[in-house]
Amino acid sequence: MSAIRHALSVKRADDFAQWYQEVISAADLAEESGVRGCMVIKPWGYGIWERIQRLMDERIKEAGVQNCYFPIFIPLANFEREASHVEGFAKEMAVVTHHRLISDGKGGLIPDPEAKLEEPLVVRPTSETIIGDAMARWIQSWRDLPLLTNQWANVVRWEMRTRMFLRTSEFLWQEGHTAHADREDAKAETMRALEMYRACAEDDLALPVIAGEKPENERFPGAVETWSIEAMMQDGKALQAGTSHYLGTNFSQAAGIQYQDREGGQQFCHTTSWGVSTRLIGGVIMAHGDDDGLRVPPKIAPQQVVILPMLREDEGDTALLAYCEELRAGIAGQAAFGEKVRVLLDKSPGKAAAKRWDWVRKGAPLIIEVGPRDMADGVVSLLRRDALWDAATAKPAFAAPARMAAVKIIPSLLEEIQSSLFNEARERRDANITRGTASMDELAAFYAEGQAFPGWVEVQWSKPSGAALDKVTEQLKALKLTIRNVPIGAAPADGACIFTGEPAVERVLVARAY
Amino acid sequence: MSAIRHALSVKRADDFAQWYQEVISAADLAEESGVRGCMVIKPWGYGIWERIQRLMDERIKEAGVQNCYFPIFIPLANFEREASHVEGFAKEMAVVTHHRLISDGKGGLIPDPEAKLEEPLVVRPTSETIIGDAMARWIQSWRDLPLLTNQWANVVRWEMRTRMFLRTSEFLWQEGHTAHADREDAKAETMRALEMYRACAEDDLALPVIAGEKPENERFPGAVETWSIEAMMQDGKALQAGTSHYLGTNFSQAAGIQYQDREGGQQFCHTTSWGVSTRLIGGVIMAHGDDDGLRVPPKIAPQQVVILPMLREDEGDTALLAYCEELRAGIAGQAAFGEKVRVLLDKSPGKAAAKRWDWVRKGAPLIIEVGPRDMADGVVSLLRRDALWDAATAKPAFAAPARMAAVKIIPSLLEEIQSSLFNEARERRDANITRGTASMDELAAFYAEGQAFPGWVEVQWSKPSGAALDKVTEQLKALKLTIRNVPIGAAPADGACIFTGEPAVERVLVARAY
Repeated sequence: MSAIRHALSVKRADDFAQWYQEVISAADLAEESGVRGCMVIKPWGYGIWERIQRLMDERIKEAGVQNCYFPIFIPLANFEREASHVEGFAKEMAVVTHHRLISDGKGGLIPDPEAKLEEPLVVRPTSETIIGDAMARWIQSWRDLPLLTNQWANVVRWEMRTRMFLRTSEFLWQEGHTAHADREDAKAETMRALEMYRACAEDDLALPVIAGEKPENERFPGAVETWSIEAMMQDGKALQAGTSHYLGTNFSQAAGIQYQDREGGQQFCHTTSWGVSTRLIGGVIMAHGDDDGLRVPPKIAPQQVVILPMLREDEGDTALLAYCEELRAGIAGQAAFGEKVRVLLDKSPGKAAAKRWDWVRKGAPLIIEVGPRDMADGVVSLLRRDALWDAATAKPAFAAPARMAAVKIIPSLLEEIQSSLFNEARERRDANITRGTASMDELAAFYAEGQAFPGWVEVQWSKPSGAALDKVTEQLKALKLTIRNVPIGAAPADGACIFTGEPAVERVLVARAY
Repeated sequence: MSAIRHALSVKRADDFAQWYQEVISAADLAEESGVRGCMVIKPWGYGIWERIQRLMDERIKEAGVQNCYFPIFIPLANFEREASHVEGFAKEMAVVTHHRLISDGKGGLIPDPEAKLEEPLVVRPTSETIIGDAMARWIQSWRDLPLLTNQWANVVRWEMRTRMFLRTSEFLWQEGHTAHADREDAKAETMRALEMYRACAEDDLALPVIAGEKPENERFPGAVETWSIEAMMQDGKALQAGTSHYLGTNFSQAAGIQYQDREGGQQFCHTTSWGVSTRLIGGVIMAHGDDDGLRVPPKIAPQQVVILPMLREDEGDTALLAYCEELRAGIAGQAAFGEKVRVLLDKSPGKAAAKRWDWVRKGAPLIIEVGPRDMADGVVSLLRRDALWDAATAKPAFAAPARMAAVKIIPSLLEEIQSSLFNEARERRDANITRGTASMDELAAFYAEGQAFPGWVEVQWSKPSGAALDKVTEQLKALKLTIRNVPIGAAPADGACIFTGEPAVERVLVARAY
């Protein structure tokens, strides 16, 4: 039995961070732009984002939320109004101070001193304050509530250390912003958005997540409650993959979002905000990638099936292309997940084998090669990206269904692949959550063992706050750990807090995280 | 015969500019944000943009162009490289100079002097230079060509006088950027994009346009040729609704976009760029709006049919809602223009008559009211937005088809409305292009006549360039006119240039313009 020769030069087990970078480059997802902390998202990466957008947007619209667009520039004064919000953001924002360039007289350009803005503008790091202004204009009475808005936009947070998709100065996201008559309704919306994120992550991205509430010190600046979905990457680290915030009346009071209730009284609205970003693509890479590159879950794959004709640049090519075109048309006429199957007949120049490995690295769910011999036999050579290798031969595990049989089985194969990626990730996650750790010493020992990928630990705690919580955070920080969230549906506490020794009130997940 | 009481307070004929603002507010499309020159696009306006995006994006993808995303920030150095490009843009850009805010000690915030950027960054006014950098990295050989990219993005141009949708400091657009082996291929792409814009404007937006080449002085900064589509608004002014540029090797030479040809030589690529923006929505308003508000062409209407139950807040409402829900489901099961019909059952609070006029002002193509009497008769009350009034009675021209008959005729009605809006705009346009004007005096007299809406004039010219063209431009400017374009397919010249008296070489359109 010979050894499998994988398509990447770095293996996950050897250097996960390096592997991550190699996948991004080998799958042609994105690259550094040369502009500090900003990336260029290339067609395959952007195509995945377009799919995520479309599926998420359907869920958003189904919930009755309406898309809008708000200005990219936010006046400084908006940040001055909400103290904890500015604390959280003021340290890392891009500030526009001039509106014109002039020649410096030496062939270069400088900001025109004559064109200095009276009030600098901030490139939005998030839009609570500017959307709050609009809400204050739009809402007069209880009849205007709930007000449910969302925008798809770019935002900028000046990051010191960046990593493609996971932490970039500019990123793309959606941000939902809603206003409600009372706490109960706003809390229901906060939880609806969280559940929407869970469903989209699990059902569309095949990304198992744990939804729960963040501890007080991990809240969004200005929020009363912050909830998250947390996904486990293959190195055992956690990725916060989406957040939903109940903002109470903090932003309403700052922006004057008020309504007249049924009795004629003036009330402050309770608001929420919730967002997911291009960071999700980083999560898909680190949850589903393998030593041959990316594996894209079929629901979010820009192309679900790629057909590679083995062209020889001779007269035989015409018939082969016709055979492949019929195959393509047959597959394009099929539906999977309630949508037309996305299939590409790749006629680009290059050898079929080289092109196969390109598509393996990109992670197209199904690759179909068709050579003259396949055509003669009326078959195709079909490769599942999620089951790439024949372990016995160490060669790609091609199947050879008849052409029309292949057309017919595509939808069920895509559904199988979607499930198999989800199940694989879920099993890995479940196998890597450790329970029963009863003390800080045990926790320290667990993470000190030098395991490559230790995973997460669920511990019981007394939910300290303020200075006591800071102390817990410091203890965890020494182990490079953070509290991820308090999982919804976790078992009730039945022991002592591992940090304080007091009776525990709930269970929290601790982990290393991105 | 009583007079029609229109739904807007200002008529087009009385004050077109004021009418335009009223439509935007009455149709709830957008509003001033309070941030200089930036608007908030509200759900109905953004819904129209989403429709335009989806239809245009399909056309872009069909042409083999791939969507990407490039950074919003562009280093100053990029603008310094291409002299004519910077000339065109440097005067109106937002410049980021700091990446952090700090307290000013008086409760306010200021840019942190410690966080001044070494090189200021410009918020993209357009992305030729940054995408040029990427193309230089991505293109090595003739095999990499053509390279066809597009992005949907926000851009910022610091405008002194802004007008919603038509000229705002921030706007949304798509920008296509392509690289080719030679002039011929790049020119073909320039013309393909232009034709795509014509088709989208006419077939999707029902906006008749004239495609042609811009004169030299109206070229995009850095372009060799600029082509446009020009639409006539109801005040007779022209709106440049989309542009496609052949950039020659200007940007290639600045960014080093080179390829190895089949013979092994190094060649500069020929590039193109092309874009349409949220300005199109301004064009839709001014081409299709009437004294009752907006009329949205069905293909780009976020909702094509709106059902308004006449609820009375009594027990009869349940049966009425069930009757309407069956109607809604029946209509939602129909297809028009190859897509499912978009239908809304509007159960929001408020009187049916008030809601009807809201939807009239918003321009939903079909409005269906259903009251208890309709239900008893098994009919619905159907109103076409494009044929709102019964001239004889001066009342809304309701039809009363049986419910199931109404369901069936929706698709053909939508198609009729789409055509009728297009035909109406085309007839108006054609009736308002004057030909045969043989001298500047005649032209001056034509525009001096004090006609409210003089329209466009097609004149013959000798295509002067340089200083001679500047002189023409000055002459026209005195009449508040500009040259719009040299229409493709115009009759050949057969007379004298009205500006220079020399033999004419082609015909150009002159007009007042937005």
